[in-house]
Amino acid sequence: MEIKDRLAIHMQAEREALQEELVGIRRHLHQNPELSTVEFETTAYIKDCLATLGITIRETHMETGVFADIGSESKGKTIAIRADIDALPIQEKVAVSFASQNAGVMHACGHDFHTASLLGAVKLLKEVEDDLPGRIRFIFQPAEEGRDGALHVIADGQLDGVDAIIGIHNKPDLPVGTVALQSGCLMAAVDRFYVTIKGKGSHGALPHKGSDPIVTASHIVTALQSVVSRKVSPLDTAVISVTRIDGGNTWNVIPEEVVMEGTTRAFSKEVRSLLKDEFYEIVNHITAAFGQKATIEWHPGPPPVINDKALTEKLKVEAGKRLTVIETEPSIAGEDFAQYLMKVPGVFAFFGTNGTEDWHHPSFTVDESALILAAEYFATSALALLDK
Amino acid sequence: MEIKDRLAIHMQAEREALQEELVGIRRHLHQNPELSTVEFETTAYIKDCLATLGITIRETHMETGVFADIGSESKGKTIAIRADIDALPIQEKVAVSFASQNAGVMHACGHDFHTASLLGAVKLLKEVEDDLPGRIRFIFQPAEEGRDGALHVIADGQLDGVDAIIGIHNKPDLPVGTVALQSGCLMAAVDRFYVTIKGKGSHGALPHKGSDPIVTASHIVTALQSVVSRKVSPLDTAVISVTRIDGGNTWNVIPEEVVMEGTTRAFSKEVRSLLKDEFYEIVNHITAAFGQKATIEWHPGPPPVINDKALTEKLKVEAGKRLTVIETEPSIAGEDFAQYLMKVPGVFAFFGTNGTEDWHHPSFTVDESALILAAEYFATSALALLDK
Amino acid sequence: MEIKDRLAIHMQAEREALQEELVGIRRHLHQNPELSTVEFETTAYIKDCLATLGITIRETHMETGVFADIGSESKGKTIAIRADIDALPIQEKVAVSFASQNAGVMHACGHDFHTASLLGAVKLLKEVEDDLPGRIRFIFQPAEEGRDGALHVIADGQLDGVDAIIGIHNKPDLPVGTVALQSGCLMAAVDRFYVTIKGKGSHGALPHKGSDPIVTASHIVTALQSVVSRKVSPLDTAVISVTRIDGGNTWNVIPEEVVMEGTTRAFSKEVRSLLKDEFYEIVNHITAAFGQKATIEWHPGPPPVINDKALTEKLKVEAGKRLTVIETEPSIAGEDFAQYLMKVPGVFAFFGTNGTEDWHHPSFTVDESALILAAEYFATSALALLDK
Amino acid sequence: MEIKDRLAIHMQAEREALQEELVGIRRHLHQNPELSTVEFETTAYIKDCLATLGITIRETHMETGVFADIGSESKGKTIAIRADIDALPIQEKVAVSFASQNAGVMHACGHDFHTASLLGAVKLLKEVEDDLPGRIRFIFQPAEEGRDGALHVIADGQLDGVDAIIGIHNKPDLPVGTVALQSGCLMAAVDRFYVTIKGKGSHGALPHKGSDPIVTASHIVTALQSVVSRKVSPLDTAVISVTRIDGGNTWNVIPEEVVMEGTTRAFSKEVRSLLKDEFYEIVNHITAAFGQKATIEWHPGPPPVINDKALTEKLKVEAGKRLTVIETEPSIAGEDFAQYLMKVPGVFAFFGTNGTEDWHHPSFTVDESALILAAEYFATSALALLDK
Repeated sequence: MEIKDRLAIHMQAEREALQEELVGIRRHLHQNPELSTVEFETTAYIKDCLATLGITIRETHMETGVFADIGSESKGKTIAIRADIDALPIQEKVAVSFASQNAGVMHACGHDFHTASLLGAVKLLKEVEDDLPGRIRFIFQPAEEGRDGALHVIADGQLDGVDAIIGIHNKPDLPVGTVALQSGCLMAAVDRFYVTIKGKGSHGALPHKGSDPIVTASHIVTALQSVVSRKVSPLDTAVISVTRIDGGNTWNVIPEEVVMEGTTRAFSKEVRSLLKDEFYEIVNHITAAFGQKATIEWHPGPPPVINDKALTEKLKVEAGKRLTVIETEPSIAGEDFAQYLMKVPGVFAFFGTNGTEDWHHPSFTVDESALILAAEYFATSALALLDK
Repeated sequence: MEIKDRLAIHMQAEREALQEELVGIRRHLHQNPELSTVEFETTAYIKDCLATLGITIRETHMETGVFADIGSESKGKTIAIRADIDALPIQEKVAVSFASQNAGVMHACGHDFHTASLLGAVKLLKEVEDDLPGRIRFIFQPAEEGRDGALHVIADGQLDGVDAIIGIHNKPDLPVGTVALQSGCLMAAVDRFYVTIKGKGSHGALPHKGSDPIVTASHIVTALQSVVSRKVSPLDTAVISVTRIDGGNTWNVIPEEVVMEGTTRAFSKEVRSLLKDEFYEIVNHITAAFGQKATIEWHPGPPPVINDKALTEKLKVEAGKRLTVIETEPSIAGEDFAQYLMKVPGVFAFFGTNGTEDWHHPSFTVDESALILAAEYFATSALALLDK
Repeated sequence: MEIKDRLAIHMQAEREALQEELVGIRRHLHQNPELSTVEFETTAYIKDCLATLGITIRETHMETGVFADIGSESKGKTIAIRADIDALPIQEKVAVSFASQNAGVMHACGHDFHTASLLGAVKLLKEVEDDLPGRIRFIFQPAEEGRDGALHVIADGQLDGVDAIIGIHNKPDLPVGTVALQSGCLMAAVDRFYVTIKGKGSHGALPHKGSDPIVTASHIVTALQSVVSRKVSPLDTAVISVTRIDGGNTWNVIPEEVVMEGTTRAFSKEVRSLLKDEFYEIVNHITAAFGQKATIEWHPGPPPVINDKALTEKLKVEAGKRLTVIETEPSIAGEDFAQYLMKVPGVFAFFGTNGTEDWHHPSFTVDESALILAAEYFATSALALLDK
Repeated sequence: MEIKDRLAIHMQAEREALQEELVGIRRHLHQNPELSTVEFETTAYIKDCLATLGITIRETHMETGVFADIGSESKGKTIAIRADIDALPIQEKVAVSFASQNAGVMHACGHDFHTASLLGAVKLLKEVEDDLPGRIRFIFQPAEEGRDGALHVIADGQLDGVDAIIGIHNKPDLPVGTVALQSGCLMAAVDRFYVTIKGKGSHGALPHKGSDPIVTASHIVTALQSVVSRKVSPLDTAVISVTRIDGGNTWNVIPEEVVMEGTTRAFSKEVRSLLKDEFYEIVNHITAAFGQKATIEWHPGPPPVINDKALTEKLKVEAGKRLTVIETEPSIAGEDFAQYLMKVPGVFAFFGTNGTEDWHHPSFTVDESALILAAEYFATSALALLDK
């Protein structure tokens, strides 16, 4: 009997019990959320789960996060499955028995769902380990929420030897039983900027004795609009938002400086770098036009999530056996899974969890009936990619 | 002997003693500064001084400020002399024995100089009261610093019966012994605005789901520049300064609203009202262009200080006997003496006090040798205007 | 034998002869190009071709354009095939024996290719007319180049009774043998605007005596950039271009008015109408902000070309038998075929013709070896859609 | 008897006859206007007038313009009186018997009035030549209307040896009998600019393939407004007007470049040079912000007309004997008399001529009764300045 069939039979047999177990795991995680980089309890919990299954943990220099392999490198490729494990600094507003017990911290982005699903997949795949035509690596990644977790995982060597990687993000606006699988760009590159325009303060009645930075900042904001409207192809996606402007503190004194913050978004390396270049050009030259000085801090976030075409096609076929496979609009949010995709090919998918609120909302929920589906998706997808 | 000559002889005889006395008064006031509307000690002190001279105080409903007459309405005109008496919320940085004893409060605009000078003038004129061809009113006005003192004085009836009014402001950049006397506009009309641009917040990556108020505010700031450059005659003086802009508080959320504050300045009623009208046009229409709503609070300050031509010519001749009379650039600052000039003709003058720092500076000083000159200027000017 | 097979056999047998014939037709048309609405010779020529085949022309009130049916309405659906027949006011710069003989007029958009191909399809389909399970209508449309030909065709009743319609446009950057077939939006909605900003002229030294329309126009241009950057979803396509600005004629006189022209593009009805609405809001309100008046002329061009999903899938399968079927980026150009798609479902395709220059270029060419392929595409596609 | 008294007696005796003669001269000139640099007939006519009086013409390399001296350098100073002699390219619309006979050319700025008055002054002064305590030079200057006549006169050496210079300009809004005499700035410095913004053309639907110069030009126009509103003191006078903007010629092509023209005005060297510097900063940097190139042509016109204080006071006293001396708003127009004032002190005055239309209007007129007043003003003023 082929391994695929063995796995299928096993999944069928275990389905109800495993679903129940995953609900328990997910609720435990949900009740005990931890912020990025300090997921100590979560890390310990995952290690316990793996130990119970007799799985050895990979060595790491990281304080949080768990990495483990099953199967054997010598038999074939290595496929990684990644789940992120950190929570958010949000006060939960959902009245459930397993609501967050940590004040001001909440799994409001559903990483508890990802983690529990991956633990389910570990269990499923462990059953067929002996026959695996290769190796499967489980990556329980910390610090996804703007704290560069993926970059640390890569630097720690946990992606070494990996041939392909898969991951998911729950999606509240997709029904349970659907998975969005599409090649190309799924999530945006996200950058952040912080600009200081330095003019010269003066009395509000004597503008010529100073150098008004509010006028300069205003010209910058209006000029930045033309990057998206004139410099980017109308067929490409790009965003530049100045989301904060702050200068002066009273009615009759022209201030010394104005501060602006904001973000850019793009779906390709080319557009991303064009946005940055044009931003610098406009900010620096327009500030110079008014005889002032600009300081720009540019904080690069994750690159775009770009799925491999061939691997995506494979997963569509495989997932299509159990789920409704759809295509969806890409998301302009970012995801540091993109960092892995800069190194190895892979597929990131949106997984239907049927919630009423969007990510990061204090009333965010997931439909737990999707847990077993996600565990099975992980297990069968990894197996499909191991296949020669 | 004419009254003018009697006054001159008296001034000559008393000069040294009076100067010494005025230095004492001024230092007492300087050491005990009080903020606008709470000049209680100052008011009591002035009343004491007047009582010593046997001068009756006029009735008033005001809690601070002192008003008194000498001479007789039946003999001729009534001429008012005004000094302002309030101090500023500034921590003095001048190391003198009579430095402010009230923490954070300072006579940093020299109103102590004005008050002491006017008390000197009271003393000089009291000597010749019997021969006065009319009446002289002394107005010790509170709350000049942006608190509408002059309007309260007028509402209280203290300007009733007055035919003309004079006043001075010390000027650090003029040498002692000079007085700037010129007809027409001497100080600016000052208005203040506070604007809220109400858009709709959204994620920084999804500008189309909100309505970005930062872009709107920026267009307003750039458009406002064209009021001065296009709508006002190049020969007129006008200022519109947006001195504060504030919207948003993080890098990835487009804010709900932006707040702007600032001021306008003009030297004529026509330009003043044009600035206000154009401001409303631009703010309201540009906000509408972006589908948003603006709320404008307009706080009118004092009108321009406009000196009467004939009276100014009279005072030039009189002051020229003792002082160097000059003309100077008008000041773009405001002064609520302007409120009196809306009701009766008068003359406001800049009086040389030879300081190193500008008004409102924590190291502001006046040269006390100008005290007697200012007292004499008040006395002789009032007498000159009484003259038929 | 099925009709499909009969057609296939016939096509195979006639291929070389028909290709040669189509080259002749296309060269005749190329040599005798006619501008939109005056395609008199072209109309006569097409009628002759149809007469030779014994095909009756449909009655029409239009002076140019030809419409004809084969088959029978009673046997099934009616499928229309459309080719446009007009040329452009461009002086040809291609040195071929069959270059345009009409000075300043050229088939620089390849409508000669479309017309010849459709005549080829007529010939192919006429052979199997008796067995047709329905009716096929041939639409030789005049005045596609910005002169509303499709609207006139519809008004003339030539789309009455039609169940679905197909058409193609040659594409120089696609190789011969490929056809781009995709559901959804293929070409943009195109609108045109003409705006007059009416200020008040004055001497260049006296801006306050007039009302400067150049400043107003400039604020409008900068504000319009924010429609694409802020109001449209980053995932949608939208263009607003001000392509002409003209005001004033000398260095010291502020002009009375400024004229602006330009175009908008969109791929959906929603975005198209948002662009127009925002344009009016911005132009009218910003003009009002400066106390001036705007006149806007809005010339709606064709809507977006949106292919029917089910029909496209059918044609992909059919075309895939003979051609390489690809997907391509939509074009931001417009096409009045879109007008038909507002009435009946259909499919517009880009057809590979392997040229070196883009549409409307004086050196534009098509590879004639694609003629027979296009004729066959038309014939087999129409038949596929007739199929129940 | 003093020379002043002799002149006064002579003026009195000749008044009626001279006025009649000057009307004749002025009408002759008015009927025969000539454009700048081609005032050949006018030059000959003036020479004739001077020859009749026995006055020797000074040598010159200039083709037009007349220069002559009376009196003797050895006896004292040299005072120059200047009148400009050229007309304008305007078609006269005044229905008088002596209307312009040269189609499209008109003395619409009243230089005929200036010239006739100066010829009257020559006649008056010639009578008292023997007693002149110095020398008087008559400068009949060509090419005042934007053709640098004064610079050519200076280059030709006609200002050599001159100690002071006087001139007038007629003023339609002042009544006959008044002269505006004031020290300081009377007329503006005038500069002219011509800017080309070089972007890159593209299809209107594909802005990213080009570089849109219309957006750049618009940002420049809006940014230039802040020079006057922010960089110049509110007490100074400054104008920057973009009076022409021109780019593109159709609705769907983004043009290669945009051209802008305009003018700046200032009343001081400092403000004039600040306007130029800021203009260059803004145009060059904003163009660079959009990745484009600007070419600026800067055409400096005359500097401001700045009257000498002491000389003006002298002339006020002298003119006050016959005329009403007033002060007036400075004019924002320019006058190349300013070039002489860069070299020698002098006084330029506005002379009341009571017209209904402004300078350069096709219905411009002067009240001829002012001719004798202007001749007398010239003669007595020159004499007053010769006085030790």
